[in-house]
Amino acid sequence: MSVLVMKFGGTSVATLDRIRRAAKRVGVEVAKGHDVIVIVSAMAGETNKLVGFVDETSPLYDAREYDAVVSSGENVTAGLMALTLQEMDIPARSWQGWQVPVRTTSAHSAARIEEIEPDNIRAKFAEGMKVAVVAGFQGVSPEGRITTLGRGGSDTTAVAFAAAFGAVRCDIYTDVDGVYTTDPRIADKARKLDQIAFEEMLELASLGAKVLQTRSVELAMRYGVKLRVLSSFEEQSDDAGTLVCPEEDVMENRPVSGIAHSRDEAKMTLISVADRPGIAAAIFLPLSEAGVNVDMIVQNISEDGRTDMTFSCPIDQVKRADKALMEAKERGDLNFHDLVADTDVAKVSAVGIGMRSQSGVAAKMFKTLSDENINIKVIATSEIKISVLIDRKYMELAVQALHDAFELEKAG
Amino acid sequence: MSVLVMKFGGTSVATLDRIRRAAKRVGVEVAKGHDVIVIVSAMAGETNKLVGFVDETSPLYDAREYDAVVSSGENVTAGLMALTLQEMDIPARSWQGWQVPVRTTSAHSAARIEEIEPDNIRAKFAEGMKVAVVAGFQGVSPEGRITTLGRGGSDTTAVAFAAAFGAVRCDIYTDVDGVYTTDPRIADKARKLDQIAFEEMLELASLGAKVLQTRSVELAMRYGVKLRVLSSFEEQSDDAGTLVCPEEDVMENRPVSGIAHSRDEAKMTLISVADRPGIAAAIFLPLSEAGVNVDMIVQNISEDGRTDMTFSCPIDQVKRADKALMEAKERGDLNFHDLVADTDVAKVSAVGIGMRSQSGVAAKMFKTLSDENINIKVIATSEIKISVLIDRKYMELAVQALHDAFELEKAG
Repeated sequence: MSVLVMKFGGTSVATLDRIRRAAKRVGVEVAKGHDVIVIVSAMAGETNKLVGFVDETSPLYDAREYDAVVSSGENVTAGLMALTLQEMDIPARSWQGWQVPVRTTSAHSAARIEEIEPDNIRAKFAEGMKVAVVAGFQGVSPEGRITTLGRGGSDTTAVAFAAAFGAVRCDIYTDVDGVYTTDPRIADKARKLDQIAFEEMLELASLGAKVLQTRSVELAMRYGVKLRVLSSFEEQSDDAGTLVCPEEDVMENRPVSGIAHSRDEAKMTLISVADRPGIAAAIFLPLSEAGVNVDMIVQNISEDGRTDMTFSCPIDQVKRADKALMEAKERGDLNFHDLVADTDVAKVSAVGIGMRSQSGVAAKMFKTLSDENINIKVIATSEIKISVLIDRKYMELAVQALHDAFELEKAG
Repeated sequence: MSVLVMKFGGTSVATLDRIRRAAKRVGVEVAKGHDVIVIVSAMAGETNKLVGFVDETSPLYDAREYDAVVSSGENVTAGLMALTLQEMDIPARSWQGWQVPVRTTSAHSAARIEEIEPDNIRAKFAEGMKVAVVAGFQGVSPEGRITTLGRGGSDTTAVAFAAAFGAVRCDIYTDVDGVYTTDPRIADKARKLDQIAFEEMLELASLGAKVLQTRSVELAMRYGVKLRVLSSFEEQSDDAGTLVCPEEDVMENRPVSGIAHSRDEAKMTLISVADRPGIAAAIFLPLSEAGVNVDMIVQNISEDGRTDMTFSCPIDQVKRADKALMEAKERGDLNFHDLVADTDVAKVSAVGIGMRSQSGVAAKMFKTLSDENINIKVIATSEIKISVLIDRKYMELAVQALHDAFELEKAG
């Protein structure tokens, strides 16, 4: 029997009515003959409430207790979803992480799934159960304690189940109807993509498109799980939403698939650093130790043995980066004239697997921005991505201009 | 090391502030050198919210899913209590029922504890942990599914842990400061008892004094667990509250320890029943099959081979009783002239282990009621209890008069 995995996020199960609507979608797939594994999040707002309780109780909390408290929201939804399906005469039961079990590492609040035992659920499918409802976002550690996978972890739970059961597909139901060429709130010409390659989705996810959790895309890519993103608020056909799939299955052939953006960036510049071997390590080692996620790095041309070094990092890590670098200077590990932070920047990126085979994408991107008189502060590239750091006030303009330039409103 | 069990009910952990107050009480006991097992209920209101979700989702719910949903409230409190204790530098961790494990029967929503494995928690105490916080009201079935013990089940969890760990005492923290000679809302002379025998507490509990769940008292009696009821809202000394203990440990020596009352009674009379052998069975078998809890029974003097038969039952079971008896009549199993229900009655009871050795208690009770012109409709007695059914409007008066007559305002 073919297994289908369906995941419903917090907004899709926010009320009993919405749980009923989600259950109807599950019923449609059961009627098609699938054995269905449904992964549920907590009802919208519940997890935040529980996290608030923990934060108020213990600012530097024991992550094991945090996990025990916060995981309870998913348990409630799982039971309610099973009851709703039973009311529709669909044989269903709920599973909590420890019951499956979903075995994870002991890294509480950020655990990784190590193994999902399918035998228990498979035996129930063999007995006639049609739907296994599993509480997402949680598992059990080798010590027998409850773990959580971190925010957005239910996507990862869903993909891991799809891999463990060899599912035909993993459908992620959410409050948007798919992955767009760019943020529709910025560019009204934004177009929903029917397909996107894993690699592109990974870049988009890590660049700030919040449709799927990065880790779930990585996992889907590694295990070849067909991932579909679609809306739980619309009637759905078989080809609704966006299919995230291997590169070779993508039909469209264009250099750029999407334009991503991120407001949460800051640019930091070390002015007049001694340009000597080992200087990069002297800068980035203390930053790494302080937990700063450095993204883009640019080194200026050296002059008189000194240079300027610029990097970008998340805006909420600026203070931490400043402290780490000033301490390194005081210790004498690092010599620079000044440290300047620019928090009025944004990152805009063009992403596409087509870049591998088509040249001129970077040139076109830079020309487009230049035509709009947008100054590029930092550039970073990967095989399938070009990112630029620009003044934040030009972010929307840049996204719209690039969307137009690469004609993303047209299907490829 | 001596183990102390402390149980906090829903109102005692209703907010984070109250959880902190409860944790302080735990800290006092830890400072005395006890290893403490804390049993917690869900934060007041949470269980009702979850039950409401289940009822709205599925009126005839699968009790296994009900248990999975409803047990989550206790899990939240357990984690928050452990975090609060940790903030006070007291080594603590939480346990959910399946983690201990608390093994129960498979009777979902009304499961009975079969075994508590103490080794897991004992090992942690040996490693230096001072407090084990356990989610009350829940366990795990032989099939590995979550069970609940039914309403008030956290008291039972507490007593079962005290028995399993050979605890020095089981302290039940609640919103009243002990067991009273009668309901203080009815008789302002009501006095808190320092001690009460298990047998008396059992009678009082089943007669409507809602301080302790009946099953928890039974369990404490069977395993010789010293049970103390005290308030979580007052500063407490070592001899605060009421100690529920074996009969031989009770210091007071008086015929009556308390006056109980219950409004939720109804009297039903079968008029002109054929008085023949087997008639009682013909009446009470169908009632039992219909799930009617018959309490008191009185048969009038027979006349011309016919008699009247009166019994009492909970007021919400009157319709069910009526239906069962009318059906028995239609089937020809039973012959009676009429069936009359009186729902304006109340039950008042005098309870005391002293009755065993002191005579004249019943006579004094009947005389007291007679002096107040209160008519007795039905009488029932046990070794340590005399109950009467009277018109409901006289209930408060009867309680006050009996409280005065037996001088319960004075310590024995």
